[in-house]
Amino acid sequence: MELVRPILTVDIVLLMLRSDELHVLVQRRDKPPEEGRLALIGGYVHPEEDGSTAAAAVRVLRDKAGVETRLLEQLMTFSGEVRDPRGWSASVAYYALLPGDYLPVSHDLVALPLREAKGLAFDHDTIVAKAAERVRRRSAYSSLPAFLLPPAFTLSGLRRAYEVIFGRSINDSAFRRKIDELRMIEAIPGSASKASARPAQLYRLIELGVVEFDRTL
Amino acid sequence: MELVRPILTVDIVLLMLRSDELHVLVQRRDKPPEEGRLALIGGYVHPEEDGSTAAAAVRVLRDKAGVETRLLEQLMTFSGEVRDPRGWSASVAYYALLPGDYLPVSHDLVALPLREAKGLAFDHDTIVAKAAERVRRRSAYSSLPAFLLPPAFTLSGLRRAYEVIFGRSINDSAFRRKIDELRMIEAIPGSASKASARPAQLYRLIELGVVEFDRTL
Repeated sequence: MELVRPILTVDIVLLMLRSDELHVLVQRRDKPPEEGRLALIGGYVHPEEDGSTAAAAVRVLRDKAGVETRLLEQLMTFSGEVRDPRGWSASVAYYALLPGDYLPVSHDLVALPLREAKGLAFDHDTIVAKAAERVRRRSAYSSLPAFLLPPAFTLSGLRRAYEVIFGRSINDSAFRRKIDELRMIEAIPGSASKASARPAQLYRLIELGVVEFDRTL
Repeated sequence: MELVRPILTVDIVLLMLRSDELHVLVQRRDKPPEEGRLALIGGYVHPEEDGSTAAAAVRVLRDKAGVETRLLEQLMTFSGEVRDPRGWSASVAYYALLPGDYLPVSHDLVALPLREAKGLAFDHDTIVAKAAERVRRRSAYSSLPAFLLPPAFTLSGLRRAYEVIFGRSINDSAFRRKIDELRMIEAIPGSASKASARPAQLYRLIELGVVEFDRTL
């Protein structure tokens, strides 16, 4: 018996830090279903060209948002009959973190403050909420927030990324001590930020990927 | 353009605590592909009857293993062209925890010690390894291991579940103090284990679901 095969898609929650606030990338849909509504960027998995759902997510990020991200992680899969009017579907959701101004300007892409990302198409409100929860939870014991910053960042920029994700302020000297103990970052020799009159030392992550600590930050 | 739709399946890593060791449930495949090899229990998602991939996992657990579990959580989705010779497939993997002797006896089901679960069919070695890692990691700050025990358990039984998952012994009085502080369990009034000559108090979880602590155990 050949069963009806469900639709398989990917959706990506691309998060950015802009104006001291987390933003999520959405796109206004230009065709049915849900035409005219804002939705996460996503698309069908193309078995003939995608090596995996992760590869499909990379392709969608490139083709629809024009970006490559240093961090792209699977969130979870959302499925069922009612989430998409085209039929029974499963969407493998990913989350990606991007420095705030790395996104090419495009007329149909919108960086929406996370707290305003309500009323999105399909079940995308749920997917965004789950992604935000995962990022918050994982940030408590990892270097994840650094991926919201450019590869070279200041210590206060890093603290600010953690603060925005946690939604609370962090004592600066306690933060410096912890970051030091965790050996997460290193000073970039001979570099200093030119963003202010009093230049601050620039740092980079020691590891390329997300590092998980055995205690919370 | 109607695209070729990938195959969508579920696979379940059912873990049990038996003879002081984690075991995983596998089944010998009675048809191609990979006929005769041991594989996780799993199957196609049936859009006409499954409300979601989670519902498909519940159905597969019931039909193939004859069990309902109190804990069933999505692990992640594994996908690609090469993992299954039938074609491009995505499998949404779940992990489930079951008390050691709750499994009905069946001629084709095998409870395999986790460390011997190698050389399974498809990419099931990878799925099992990911599930074991997730369960270990999550157990460090949650009540997860209690779901390897019957609803009424002794304190030393609970400690043993944590010890087996962590792969190290835990100081008994420190464990009792922590469990007490976390308010995870409560004594069942008037009950005591009949497993030994000196009956021990029986406990139950206060919450029905997994509780996550804000610090590690």
